Parts: sequence; C-alpha cells; structure tokens
Amino acid sequence: MARVTQEHLDARRRQILDGAARCFARNGFHATSMQDVLTEAGLSAGAVYRYFRSKDELIQAIAEETFASVRTAFVGAVASNPPPAPDVLVGRVMTVVLEERIAGAGRGAFARLIIQVWSETLRDESLARTLRQGFDGMRELWTGLFDAYRAHGMFAADVSSEDMARTLIAVVQGFIAQQALFDDVEIGVLEKGLGGLMSMGAADPAPPVR
Amino acid sequence: MARVTQEHLDARRRQILDGAARCFARNGFHATSMQDVLTEAGLSAGAVYRYFRSKDELIQAIAEETFASVRTAFVGAVASNPPPAPDVLVGRVMTVVLEERIAGAGRGAFARLIIQVWSETLRDESLARTLRQGFDGMRELWTGLFDAYRAHGMFAADVSSEDMARTLIAVVQGFIAQQALFDDVEIGVLEKGLGGLMSMGAADPAPPVR
Repeated sequence: MARVTQEHLDARRRQILDGAARCFARNGFHATSMQDVLTEAGLSAGAVYRYFRSKDELIQAIAEETFASVRTAFVGAVASNPPPAPDVLVGRVMTVVLEERIAGAGRGAFARLIIQVWSETLRDESLARTLRQGFDGMRELWTGLFDAYRAHGMFAADVSSEDMARTLIAVVQGFIAQQALFDDVEIGVLEKGLGGLMSMGAADPAPPVR
Repeated sequence: MARVTQEHLDARRRQILDGAARCFARNGFHATSMQDVLTEAGLSAGAVYRYFRSKDELIQAIAEETFASVRTAFVGAVASNPPPAPDVLVGRVMTVVLEERIAGAGRGAFARLIIQVWSETLRDESLARTLRQGFDGMRELWTGLFDAYRAHGMFAADVSSEDMARTLIAVVQGFIAQQALFDDVEIGVLEKGLGGLMSMGAADPAPPVR
C-alpha cells in the first residue's frame, strides 16, 4: 500500500471543500446532497467520508476556514505603522478575502456561500457557536484597533470603540449580502462610501437654509 | 352563504402571512411545509390555498411587505425639516421596522426571517427581482437624502451620494445579520457606532506618536 503523505491528505481535503463550496453556492445547502459533492469533487464516497461524515461537517469546516482567512488578511493589513484608516483597511481585507475565491467560482459565489452559512446557523447549534466565536474574535481585533485610532485622536473622545467595531463589521456583512443578492458590488464603493460617511465632521458646513 | 367582506379577507391574509413568517423564522424555509403553515395559522388547506398557492408565493409576499414597511418608516422619519442626521435616521427606521414584529414572535425572529429570504433568492428568480427592486428603491431614497445633506455641506464635496447610500444600507443589512446570528443587538449600538465613525473629521487630532 502506498504511503499517504500529509500533503496528499491536505490536497484531498482542499478538493472536497472546494467542491462542496461550489455546490452550496450554486444550489444552496439543502438542495445539495453528499452525492453532488462527490461528483463535483470527482471523488469516490469512501474518499470523501474519510474526511467529512456529513454536509454539516462540510459547512462547519467552510465557516472555520473563512474566519481564519479574514483574520489573516486583517492582521496582515493592520501590520503597517501607523495602521491604515478604517475605510482603507476594510477595502484591503475585503480584497484579500474575496480574491481567495472558491476554486473555479467567482466572488459572487463566495458571497452566496456565506449567506447559506448564515441561513444554516438557524438549525445547526454547532455552526452557530463557530460563527459566534469568529464574530467575537473579529470584534476584539476591531475594538483594539479603534482604541488605537482614538488614542491618536482620530475620533471624538466620547464614542465607543466596541460600537464602532460592531458597525464596521456590519458594513462588511452588508456588502457580502449585497454581493450575494445583486452581484454588482465593487469594493471601491464600500471604501469610498465609508470614507464619505467619515468625512462628515471634516466638511465646511454651509449656513443652514432659512 | 355569508357575504365575505374585504376586511375579513385582509384579516385572513394577515393571519396566514404571520403564521408562515413564524414557521420560516423558527425552522427555515426548506424545513417548513404548507401543512406547517396551515397548522400554525389554525386554518384549513382550502382557506390558505385561496390566498397563496405555494411557499414561494408566501415568501414573496413577506418580502414585498417588508420593503413597504421599511419605505413607510423611512419616509415618515425623513419628513422633519431639516432631516435628521444619517445615524439618527437609521436608528428611527430600524426601531419602527423591528417594532413591527412578526405577530407572536420577537425581533430576532424577524431578522432570521430576512436571512431566510436572502438565502432563497439563490433559487427563486422572482424573489430575486423583488429584492432588487426593493433595494433599488431604498438606494434612490438614500441617495436623494445624501444629495440634500451634501447641499448643506454636511459631507466632503467630492464624495459620492450613491456610494454612501449603499454603505449605509450595508450597515442596516449587517445589523440584521448580527441580530439573526447572535440575537443581542441593541439599535443604540448601530446609531452610536455610526455616529462615532462619522465623528472622525470632527475630532481634534493629537500629534502623531514618534
């Protein structure tokens, strides 16, 4: 019997997850069977079940991988000193995450997959826990960053870093929803829109109309 | 045979839609059958099929109703002169929409229902069209409002009203996702977080650390 290397195992796992992601993004989680995943990945049932016993395990692994890639992109983008402004940072993170597309599918497919994951948390407690942990982790990272921004006097003194962190994450989630629903979102829109909102206090106010 | 008034027809339709909304929010769209909806609404099959022939028609009607209620809340909130700032306006609209809860269910159930609707657009072209129209309508309303804000010098001159409109709608969508996933979102967080982000230019910057 041939010796199976870790590299081979990892590549096989990757192949299965990419196949599952394409199926879920295309047809939704419920309309996809394990057989569809086998066919899409071009593997036998034995090869797949060795790695994942169910669709629930597949979507769980996809969710964990997504959070890991967002976290890596965030940590990479924030490493410069001083860190980029929030709008620039969000643009960079989104670009990295969306470029890491599902193999053989586009950015829209990735967004549709995320919506499927959100929808599934309703019926899958374990997946809901994974999402909560991932969200809490992102919230901590962003909150720490907003503390740093505020220490540099970038925002009003009395605002909450935690509230801004949640709101910024909401912007990203909302863009994923728009991408999934309408498939026409440029990341530049997000970055410029956010930059525009943050320009509020900087504008030179005209006298109010009487 | 008793004469059936329009009022009676409307009340019956309401009863069916509320029952369907509760079922979809609780168990997801796919795991809900028309029989579940009948049972939840306490009606016979004949009574329900007279109004809606399928689950697809039910979710379509729910999506249309939701957009109508968001639009009404927006138009009501924006009527004051001058219109409230974006953060205050978003807070007011979200409050009105989330207070119009699904009969017998809470705010979390409403958010989970929206996630189900998003997820279903993947497989339902007609629903996808409804969402696109609703979204385009909201985008127009917000873009017009940002034009007005900018005419009053509230934002930098070179930012795009359209981009800010999309970003603000993304904030709302993201908060719906957080509410659906984690069920712990106060509308105040959204309003304060947005207000905080918009305070950026207004802060008195401290000298950069050397």
